[in-house]
Amino acid sequence: MTKYSTRVPACILLAGGVMVWVMLHLSSMETPDFPFIYVITPTHKRPTQKADLTRMGNTLRQVPNLHWIVVEDAGVRSPLVAKLLLNSGIPHTHLNILKPDYCKSGCVARGSEQRNLGLDWLRQHRGPLDSGVVYFGDDDNTYDLELFEEMRSTKWVSVWPVGLIAGRWYERPVVHNGKVVGWFTGFPGRRFGTDMAGFAVNLNLILANPNARFVLQGAKSGMQENNFLNKLTKLEDLEPKANNCTKVLVWHTRTEKAPLNKHVKDNVDIEV
Amino acid sequence: MTKYSTRVPACILLAGGVMVWVMLHLSSMETPDFPFIYVITPTHKRPTQKADLTRMGNTLRQVPNLHWIVVEDAGVRSPLVAKLLLNSGIPHTHLNILKPDYCKSGCVARGSEQRNLGLDWLRQHRGPLDSGVVYFGDDDNTYDLELFEEMRSTKWVSVWPVGLIAGRWYERPVVHNGKVVGWFTGFPGRRFGTDMAGFAVNLNLILANPNARFVLQGAKSGMQENNFLNKLTKLEDLEPKANNCTKVLVWHTRTEKAPLNKHVKDNVDIEV
Repeated sequence: MTKYSTRVPACILLAGGVMVWVMLHLSSMETPDFPFIYVITPTHKRPTQKADLTRMGNTLRQVPNLHWIVVEDAGVRSPLVAKLLLNSGIPHTHLNILKPDYCKSGCVARGSEQRNLGLDWLRQHRGPLDSGVVYFGDDDNTYDLELFEEMRSTKWVSVWPVGLIAGRWYERPVVHNGKVVGWFTGFPGRRFGTDMAGFAVNLNLILANPNARFVLQGAKSGMQENNFLNKLTKLEDLEPKANNCTKVLVWHTRTEKAPLNKHVKDNVDIEV
Repeated sequence: MTKYSTRVPACILLAGGVMVWVMLHLSSMETPDFPFIYVITPTHKRPTQKADLTRMGNTLRQVPNLHWIVVEDAGVRSPLVAKLLLNSGIPHTHLNILKPDYCKSGCVARGSEQRNLGLDWLRQHRGPLDSGVVYFGDDDNTYDLELFEEMRSTKWVSVWPVGLIAGRWYERPVVHNGKVVGWFTGFPGRRFGTDMAGFAVNLNLILANPNARFVLQGAKSGMQENNFLNKLTKLEDLEPKANNCTKVLVWHTRTEKAPLNKHVKDNVDIEV
């Protein structure tokens, strides 16, 4: 499952005195040369929130050395998300920040304030000696486990295709001789024609560039990723992953809204 | 995570001579008193199929003693699903059957032919000495891992709530003194007011009742589950799970259709 897993034979002496030989899988051991993946996930209250976070957690739980930074668009951290994260067994940080007033009626940069708070947390709690990779993973996308092992070796900024996006089967970086030279995208004219789900950044690059943040006010639709990456790298320095950007390992799925217009009150209080 | 997991302290002698003490998790050991869960999943070709099966597989991979029976609504088994199942690492059976002609223009009993084929496979390949539980799990639902440990002890037929269904936060069996006495549902008038995701059946009950199948022709919308359970059990014999049916551990989520009306041809062939 992971490139970094190792099998070693080991003799196990059980408490009762029985001795058995087994193969040990050391994939989830923490080692200094095994960088942490920090997944920053903005989330907001809605009927499908717990379902979406549940299945995303089911996926992330299997990724070794992963730290999940979940940032609620809310004035306070909700017990629902807190309990879900605790039960997930995933190393995590639970944050919250309300979207600014000028975004209340809808904002093109949805989730950006939450992503910025995740970046702030990393800048405050991690230092240049920490080895890691930062990824912005929305709670309704679909992730193949292989994606995380692809991004783990990111030296600066890595990129890859994203499936089911912008009315297309996929968008992807176009690679020539191992270098990114352009984008197969429905929204051309951007230097970095990628969705939020299509790139990862080395932690040290985030720490060394405190101005790398998402801009909310005056932001144009679809330009968030481009503007963010412009502060960090150049096109020719991008690291193509997923077999030179020819494999779809993440899908921009959306969960249908659950209308709940027919709910009637029950005599018990059940969390959904 | 699982009721059946056990932690035992063990001394591990690594090949290099280093000795360490660890806690061993024995949750995934196969033992005769640890029944298999057979999940029957109908699936059909659509843009989000691989994404949906990928995240369902990410969940099922963590359930010990689980066998995934995936039945395609297709004339032949697709390489996409075959490869996905192989890579999932989950014990599985891959089947296919095309929906009958009278269902081509839409059928109220969608997926029923595929579920029947899954039942046929169990009746042909499992016997009364096999201990197991049968569950019909659609590929776009969301599952908490706890659901599977709840259903594993099913003696006859067990039931529980289903979230985000029929315009409601949830539907659920109503339990009084540990017995199911009715249903909190938006579609009353059925003896068994449950969705496909809300019950499991002991394997031996399936084997002992070869007439327990889903009826397609003349079937009324929403009556499939009721008609199937009518052949197997009585209301008073249902086993309520999930804390007397007060916990939502499965959500009837739906993935938004991906329109792909803007796709243009790429110069490589990429599976999505």
